[in-house]
Amino acid sequence: MEALSKAKQKWVRSLQLKKNRDQALLFVVEGEKSVLEGLSAFASHLELLVSIDSFASQIPDQFHSKTFLVTNKELEQISELKTPNKCIAIFRRPDTVLLSDQFTIVLDGIQDPGNLGTILRLADWFGVKQLVCSKDTVDCYNPKVIQSSMGAIYRVIVHYTDLASYLRNSPQQKYGAMLNGKNYKETDYAENAILIMGNEGKGVRPEIEALIDFPVTIPRFGEAESLNVATATAILLAEIIR
Amino acid sequence: MEALSKAKQKWVRSLQLKKNRDQALLFVVEGEKSVLEGLSAFASHLELLVSIDSFASQIPDQFHSKTFLVTNKELEQISELKTPNKCIAIFRRPDTVLLSDQFTIVLDGIQDPGNLGTILRLADWFGVKQLVCSKDTVDCYNPKVIQSSMGAIYRVIVHYTDLASYLRNSPQQKYGAMLNGKNYKETDYAENAILIMGNEGKGVRPEIEALIDFPVTIPRFGEAESLNVATATAILLAEIIR
Repeated sequence: MEALSKAKQKWVRSLQLKKNRDQALLFVVEGEKSVLEGLSAFASHLELLVSIDSFASQIPDQFHSKTFLVTNKELEQISELKTPNKCIAIFRRPDTVLLSDQFTIVLDGIQDPGNLGTILRLADWFGVKQLVCSKDTVDCYNPKVIQSSMGAIYRVIVHYTDLASYLRNSPQQKYGAMLNGKNYKETDYAENAILIMGNEGKGVRPEIEALIDFPVTIPRFGEAESLNVATATAILLAEIIR
Repeated sequence: MEALSKAKQKWVRSLQLKKNRDQALLFVVEGEKSVLEGLSAFASHLELLVSIDSFASQIPDQFHSKTFLVTNKELEQISELKTPNKCIAIFRRPDTVLLSDQFTIVLDGIQDPGNLGTILRLADWFGVKQLVCSKDTVDCYNPKVIQSSMGAIYRVIVHYTDLASYLRNSPQQKYGAMLNGKNYKETDYAENAILIMGNEGKGVRPEIEALIDFPVTIPRFGEAESLNVATATAILLAEIIR
């Protein structure tokens, strides 16, 4: 394994910017557990692996030609994290073929990276293969999203598109989490449906709301003003996916 | 409304430390929305209110004698937040009477403030009035917990105690989230039961597990290694509380 050249260090650091990641069609994963999971689940998409000396022995042989060594200090300089872990992996993004015969979660303007990461992790638990997001939803390759997705980013495909036109053209049944819908437990769910979840504060936009076939609501028994969007998604998925 | 004296500024800042909050039996709330909700839901427990000039007009008359004005710069110095909001409220903690005839969420070693805050918010949504936590669970008066609880801290009582002895002495039925339990949808739930949730990484401790009457599991349909503890709590509460 060679040392990571200054030029490559600069390049890895440049990928902290969304603009540069987008242009190169790459994403960056930090931390032992997530990197090792990526090497196992997403090996064919590995572009480059950065490691400190003491972690190198844990990297399987087949990746050695793509692995470059850094000092702790160099790692600190190229890492997104305040306290960097032992390694950074750079992966090529998967092709995103939008499937129309799959259960799909649609997100309308989710802003918080932790929420998107948690929803990805939930999708991964419930076997949901694709998310479709409005263009103003937080970037799924944001480091905080990747971190809270706990590896789901390797298995769940995320599309960004014009939601209204996507929904208008989709033949699938459309369920949406609303405040004034039918009790979600008293609703029948079609197979391979679409579940639409709205922004943390504002909910689903009116033009998207107009495209929902079945608005559903989680009844409230206490006094909280609202549920967090990731926990609401959890409750609805647990009811729909059996 | 008077200006906040230097001595009082120092005192408010001292409450950033858990040790000092615990000793004084107080907690600190920051941000317009949470503070105003506290003034409405928790008025009798208000100890002191700090406000910048431009926010003072939004404070109801009855609280003026407890309100002290600060400059933006002073607020920055006494705030816990990097970008402080317009006001800080200090409340006395509620009395915590442990009830044995109430549905209760038990937390065994939850570490992440965001998770505890989200579970509080969930409890508040589902009308759960009390949480019982192991002594090593994150402090419910941690500023990040309060922030993510979205006002639930005013309505849900949190107890810290020796869990094993609490559970041993409780006559309530005990359900616990485990990896090898019965499908949670095929389980009957007694009224006013106890639901036990474990630590983010390690789950429920063996000595607590031994006290669970009914281990329950959320079936997995995909490949994620685990569910986040707050989303798992959401799914179980939605099934149990009807």
